[in-house]
Amino acid sequence: MRYLTAKLAQQIDEELMNALGAFSLDQLMELAGLACAQTLATVYRRDVYPRVLVCCGPGNQGGDGLVAARHLGMFGYHPTIYMPKPGSKDIYKRLQTQCANMKIPIIPPSNDLEDLRKALHHTDVIMDAIFGFSFQPPIRTPFDAVLPLLNDSRLPIVSVDIPSGWDVEKGNNFGVGLHANVLISLTAPKEGVLDFRGRHFLGGRFVPKTIEEKFDLQLPQYPGTDQIVELPLEEAIRLNNQ
Amino acid sequence: MRYLTAKLAQQIDEELMNALGAFSLDQLMELAGLACAQTLATVYRRDVYPRVLVCCGPGNQGGDGLVAARHLGMFGYHPTIYMPKPGSKDIYKRLQTQCANMKIPIIPPSNDLEDLRKALHHTDVIMDAIFGFSFQPPIRTPFDAVLPLLNDSRLPIVSVDIPSGWDVEKGNNFGVGLHANVLISLTAPKEGVLDFRGRHFLGGRFVPKTIEEKFDLQLPQYPGTDQIVELPLEEAIRLNNQ
Repeated sequence: MRYLTAKLAQQIDEELMNALGAFSLDQLMELAGLACAQTLATVYRRDVYPRVLVCCGPGNQGGDGLVAARHLGMFGYHPTIYMPKPGSKDIYKRLQTQCANMKIPIIPPSNDLEDLRKALHHTDVIMDAIFGFSFQPPIRTPFDAVLPLLNDSRLPIVSVDIPSGWDVEKGNNFGVGLHANVLISLTAPKEGVLDFRGRHFLGGRFVPKTIEEKFDLQLPQYPGTDQIVELPLEEAIRLNNQ
Repeated sequence: MRYLTAKLAQQIDEELMNALGAFSLDQLMELAGLACAQTLATVYRRDVYPRVLVCCGPGNQGGDGLVAARHLGMFGYHPTIYMPKPGSKDIYKRLQTQCANMKIPIIPPSNDLEDLRKALHHTDVIMDAIFGFSFQPPIRTPFDAVLPLLNDSRLPIVSVDIPSGWDVEKGNNFGVGLHANVLISLTAPKEGVLDFRGRHFLGGRFVPKTIEEKFDLQLPQYPGTDQIVELPLEEAIRLNNQ
């Protein structure tokens, strides 16, 4: 399997919505968010970890988080959305409304961390949909303070695509990134997670063969009708030692 | 569980995209089509029934069929699309392009039934996404000839929402409808399928509680992270005898 640079991830994302894919952002986000929700539900059982704090950034990854929160609600979890900087895109607003329609609590946007501190006291597991493959340092306020708070909570963290604060290609080399326990890579894993040592899943069972071949992704087989596949740890270690 | 009239089904569909739902058609079709593909894969194993003829009508149900065909391709089946009257909506065209990008064969639109006859010789199971809950008789050409051909093939048929040719409320009372073996009702079952006696699944795990309560749908619990739930046969028999 190929681990992607930030630039390649961007190119594949564009290709999925252009000629070789022809997908709409609505479709891709729906399937990506569903894969994220299924990953969390696979590792953290609903009866033991019912309360999920879904942390959303302002970009497309925040949108994946909103979709995941909605599906988690459908799965019987009790999600709460923490979204200090809501995205401005129309799709982001619609996804928010869908969550509100499902009566999923949304912590009002604010730079004050008191709300987050309180929410963490009533959380069993965190979903990190803050920064994605287009993240570039430095970490802007309030996220520079949010990430340490999430780490200090010692709660299990499921990160989407790349743990927030990690460099997309170099990993957690500044040491300020989230200590994720579980990772769900979307479409294909990024170079920065070669050092990741938790449970690692792949989602995005929508990549056409034409795109897989053009970018030589060498994707693994997904089982049955699942939207996710767990990756063996050995894969990353082997590639990393080459 | 409540069985819906055609009018109620229409109202709920609108509500899902209006204030109480705020979903886009792209999102709903993606999840509906995924549920259809999962239903077929649950009943007809890929190694025994690899070749699926996905028959699509010109409306939104045809769109569900196109999404299902794409996911079936992802699941390792060999779908072929039969679509004698392609829909004119933009989303329909995009879904077609997505299938073409995945190299799923599409039988060229035509009123000539020879192509269908040939295709049926190389088919293990049929997915019927021809007519949905907005179907009103009479059955127009070429579908008046297509439905008997599908029945005569004796191949197993998985119907979406209502077997094509059945009245949405009165069932197969003209006897011209498809002999479906498996049914996947979307959102909630329609009154016309109270007499259906095959395996019956429900899909559409996206209905918010507010809509479920407004229309008193009394939906069953979906298991785990599945997008479908199988309905017990007794349910329909009991309701039918009331």
